[in-house]
Amino acid sequence: MTAAERIWTAGLVIIGDEILSGRTHDKNIAQIATWLQVQGIRLSEVRVVPDIEERIVEAVNALRAANDYLFTTGGIGPTHDDITVDAIARALDVPVVIHPEARVMLERYYASKGTELTDARLRMARVPQGAELIPNRMSGAPGIRIGNLFIMAGVPHITAGMLDSLTGTLEGGAPLLTETVGCWVAESEVADLLREVEQAHDNAQIGSYPFFREGRTGANFVIRSTDADTLKSCVDSLCDGLATAGHDFTPGGI
Amino acid sequence: MTAAERIWTAGLVIIGDEILSGRTHDKNIAQIATWLQVQGIRLSEVRVVPDIEERIVEAVNALRAANDYLFTTGGIGPTHDDITVDAIARALDVPVVIHPEARVMLERYYASKGTELTDARLRMARVPQGAELIPNRMSGAPGIRIGNLFIMAGVPHITAGMLDSLTGTLEGGAPLLTETVGCWVAESEVADLLREVEQAHDNAQIGSYPFFREGRTGANFVIRSTDADTLKSCVDSLCDGLATAGHDFTPGGI
Repeated sequence: MTAAERIWTAGLVIIGDEILSGRTHDKNIAQIATWLQVQGIRLSEVRVVPDIEERIVEAVNALRAANDYLFTTGGIGPTHDDITVDAIARALDVPVVIHPEARVMLERYYASKGTELTDARLRMARVPQGAELIPNRMSGAPGIRIGNLFIMAGVPHITAGMLDSLTGTLEGGAPLLTETVGCWVAESEVADLLREVEQAHDNAQIGSYPFFREGRTGANFVIRSTDADTLKSCVDSLCDGLATAGHDFTPGGI
Repeated sequence: MTAAERIWTAGLVIIGDEILSGRTHDKNIAQIATWLQVQGIRLSEVRVVPDIEERIVEAVNALRAANDYLFTTGGIGPTHDDITVDAIARALDVPVVIHPEARVMLERYYASKGTELTDARLRMARVPQGAELIPNRMSGAPGIRIGNLFIMAGVPHITAGMLDSLTGTLEGGAPLLTETVGCWVAESEVADLLREVEQAHDNAQIGSYPFFREGRTGANFVIRSTDADTLKSCVDSLCDGLATAGHDFTPGGI
């Protein structure tokens, strides 16, 4: 297997009762998935778990064993329900320590706001021993990197800033290339075509995503490959097949 | 433990490469979580897995062993990437059969559209042996119930219709009651108060959800309990504490 063929994967553990209660709509899955794809890393599994230490430990250990990278979101703030650092330290079997740089960052941040670094705020400088910091320009509280494990915020725009500072620093494979073809057709009418075109192209997958809009049925077909030529050939075959069957299609999707 | 204290839980497996690629933003977690809460059932864990049979089997078996109910979304359409029924049949170690009622429903649906039940469309009548159907008024293709396992669509408004027809049919416990109090304060300033109020109330949890809007810092505090009196006492204590500390608060949240 060449370097280009090696597939790098990541797991994601989303920590938060607020997602499991339906109160907060998660935005981190899509954001992290999209970012990973640009880094040549495939999001392989997501688990959403409650703010319970043993449940976090279990999910973190399962997904870090199965993937090259592990990301977590949520539970790194200053309040009593923020237990991610403790859970991850337990999963890694290392103690929790105050990171000196994080303490300085928080001192500066709160000084700039004319207020003090209280004990509760100092919680945000706690890291599993051996960790580095991931800068966060938004709120002073950093994310945490320990080996291939990345501990990020729950608030999506803070996580966005942390991802930004990690861009280009992770080893990945060939990015997965995708193209979308949209068609006002019931996917069941072209199911055979989709299967045949996919089977004729190794190293390409076709996903079919139906929708109903304004009382009409349609579908977007997403073609994925790590190889540009394969992708093009697969898209061309699909479009030829749709045209032959008398279906108008929209390159780029509907 | 009385019947009212028994906590009923559900797991959710979301099946779909389109979620893991970031292409589609999941809406089913929040929708199913909210619906479950009204039924007195707590969503305990969510796993998002790719369209790979063994990965679906693994997630389904793990979450059905750990919970009273298991829901899945995605992968029940007519195309080659719809493999949920096969995977769940394998997880349950039963064969896949054509459900006679589902066949009739699909025949009627396509006849009403002036078209035929092709082999691809007949795939949507396949169920794990022993299953019942969950009506779907939207597209003719039903959801599937087999014991405490519920196989739902990926398209959110179709899943909504399936949930609707299940409303009130599942045994659950006391619904989790919640109240929200919003405050324009950095959560780190009131972290001690939150912890103390929670500790003083058994059977109540307080979640703290910070936000940044229009350049200002605030947080919503969500108080949860299955007991109305405990909930009220916990909310009152928190509001008293916020007022004493000089913070204006907004009942119902910001």
